[in-house]
Amino acid sequence: MQIQNILQRYGDDLKIVEEYLEKNYSSYIQIIPEVTDYIINSGGKRFRPLLLMISSDLCGYAGERRYSMAAVTEFLHTASLLHDDIIDHADTRRGQTAANNVWGNSVSVLVGDFLYSQAFKLMIEDGDPSLQKVLTSAAITMVEGETAQLTKCNDINITEEEYNSFIERKTAVLVSAACATGAVLAKAPQTTVDLLTNFGIKLGIAFQVTDDTLDYVATKEEFGKAIGMDFKEGKVTLPLIWTLKKCSPDEKGIVEKTLESKNISNNNIKEITSLINKYEGVDYALNKAGEYIKEAKLFLESFEDSAPKDALLAISDYIVERKL
Amino acid sequence: MQIQNILQRYGDDLKIVEEYLEKNYSSYIQIIPEVTDYIINSGGKRFRPLLLMISSDLCGYAGERRYSMAAVTEFLHTASLLHDDIIDHADTRRGQTAANNVWGNSVSVLVGDFLYSQAFKLMIEDGDPSLQKVLTSAAITMVEGETAQLTKCNDINITEEEYNSFIERKTAVLVSAACATGAVLAKAPQTTVDLLTNFGIKLGIAFQVTDDTLDYVATKEEFGKAIGMDFKEGKVTLPLIWTLKKCSPDEKGIVEKTLESKNISNNNIKEITSLINKYEGVDYALNKAGEYIKEAKLFLESFEDSAPKDALLAISDYIVERKL
Repeated sequence: MQIQNILQRYGDDLKIVEEYLEKNYSSYIQIIPEVTDYIINSGGKRFRPLLLMISSDLCGYAGERRYSMAAVTEFLHTASLLHDDIIDHADTRRGQTAANNVWGNSVSVLVGDFLYSQAFKLMIEDGDPSLQKVLTSAAITMVEGETAQLTKCNDINITEEEYNSFIERKTAVLVSAACATGAVLAKAPQTTVDLLTNFGIKLGIAFQVTDDTLDYVATKEEFGKAIGMDFKEGKVTLPLIWTLKKCSPDEKGIVEKTLESKNISNNNIKEITSLINKYEGVDYALNKAGEYIKEAKLFLESFEDSAPKDALLAISDYIVERKL
Repeated sequence: MQIQNILQRYGDDLKIVEEYLEKNYSSYIQIIPEVTDYIINSGGKRFRPLLLMISSDLCGYAGERRYSMAAVTEFLHTASLLHDDIIDHADTRRGQTAANNVWGNSVSVLVGDFLYSQAFKLMIEDGDPSLQKVLTSAAITMVEGETAQLTKCNDINITEEEYNSFIERKTAVLVSAACATGAVLAKAPQTTVDLLTNFGIKLGIAFQVTDDTLDYVATKEEFGKAIGMDFKEGKVTLPLIWTLKKCSPDEKGIVEKTLESKNISNNNIKEITSLINKYEGVDYALNKAGEYIKEAKLFLESFEDSAPKDALLAISDYIVERKL
C-alpha cells in the first residue's frame, strides 16, 4: 500500500479529527486559539491520529470516540512541542518561526498548559478508565523522558541505551498509546492491545531515530529546520553517539569543546557533520531505525491480512524512508 | 475560632495530605521530586487542601478520598506557580530563589507539566465524573485567567472589572473548587455545592486582592518577596488601578513611563508606592477585599452552626487581616 492510498482511505476520518481539534481549542481568550491555530496548522503530519484511525480500523471499531481520542493524542503532542520550544530555545519549528519567538515564552507555556488540560478534559468526558490509564500514563512518561534527556544535555558520554530509553519515553510511548487506543476502543482482547502497544513502541523509536538523523542531513527546505539544531541545543543523538564511540580522542575533544561553547557557528556544525559523515553515524542510525521497524512489523504478524494491516506496514516502511 | 484552633483541628488531616503529596510526586527521574520538594516545601500554606478538609467536615465526609483530592488542588496550584515563575521571570518565590533561577526554565516547565499530569492522574484514579468536571474546569479556567492577565501586561487602562475577572479565573476558581469538592465528596445536594462554590469564589477573590496589596506594603521579611514585584512584571493590580483612576494626568504619565521602561529601579518602585499611598490605593483594595469577605460569609449563613462553619468564617477574616 502506498502512503497516498492510506491518506485516501483515512482522509475523511482525519478531516473529522481536524474538526474535533478546532472545536476543542476554542476559548474566549482570543490568543489561545490564535497560538494553537498557528502551531497546530503548521504542517503537523497528524501521525498519532492516523495511527489511531488505522488501529481502530484493524480491530473493527468505527465509532465517534476515535475522533476525540485522536484529538487527545494530538493535543498532548502539540502541548509538548510548545513546551519543548521553550526548553530548546528553538527559533524555528516545522519551517516557521517557533511560537515562543512570536508570542514569548509566557504564552507558549500557558497555551501548552491549556492544550494539556483540554486533552485530559476529553479523556475525562470519554470516561473509559482503561483508555484514561493508557493516555495519562503516556503523558506522564513523556514528561519524564523529556526531563531525563534534559539532564543529559551536552553530555558526550551518553550511551546508546540511555538515548534509547529517552526517546522511548519522550516519543514512542505516545505513538504506542495511539496504536493501543484503537484496540481498546474496539474492546479487543488484552493480547491484541499488547501487540499494538509493542508495535507502537518500536515504530515510535524508529520514528524518533529517523527524525534525529534528519537533523544532520536535511536541508532547511526539506525538513523545515536548520541543520544541527539538536546539536546546538546540546542534544546528543544517535548519529553523534555512534561517532563519539568510533572517533579518535582528539576528535572527541573537538565535539566536547564545541558542545560546551556558547556560540555554535555554522562552521562548527559543518565540522561536526563531517565527523559524523566520516564515521557513517547517520547510516548507523538509519540502520538501527530499520531494525526497529523490522521488530515493529513482527508484532503485526498474527493479524489477518487486511487493508488496515497493510496500511500499518506501509507506514512502518515510510517512517525510515521519509525525507521530511 | 482562632487560626491556631483550626490548624489543631485539621492538623492531622493536613499531615496525611503531605504524605499523599510526597507519594505522588515520586519519579525515577531524580530531578522531578527534587524540584517538586523544593517548591512544595517552601512555605506553601496548603490553603486549598485546608479548605477542602473543612468543607468536607462541614458536609459530613471524612473518607480517604479527601486526601488525594486535596493533593490534586495543591498540585494544580504548585504547577501553576512553577509556570508562573517562567511567565513572571520571578527571582524569588516565598522568600527563596524561584525554581526557574535554580534549575532553569526548562526544568520548571517540565516539572510543572509533571505535576499537572499527576493531578489529572489522581482525578482519573478517583473516577468520580462530577469531581473530575469541577477540578478540570478549574484547571482550564486558571490557564485562561493567567493568559488573559498576560495580554493586559503593562496596560494602565485595565479596569477594576477586568482585574476582577482575571483574579476570579486565575485564583478564585481553584479555591472555589477546593470548597466545592468537600460538598461533592459528601454527596451533598447541589444547592450546598453551589453555596460552597460561591463562598469559595468570593473568598478566592479576597485572597488574591489581599495578596496584591501585600506586594506594595510588606517588607521582604514579612512577605518573602521584594516590594513592587508585580509592578516590575507589568502586572497592574487593584491598588494601582485605583490610583490610576484618581491621580492627575501627569502622575498617570509617570506610571505609564515607568511601566514601559526596561529597568525599573528601587527608586522607581518607591515613587509608585508613594503615589499609591497618596491616593490610598492599598486601603481601597483592602476595603474591597473586606467587602468580598462579607459576601463570602453570606453564602455560609444557611449552614447550621458547627466547628467547621466557624473555621470557614475564621479563615475568611484571616484572609484580609494576614500580613503574609
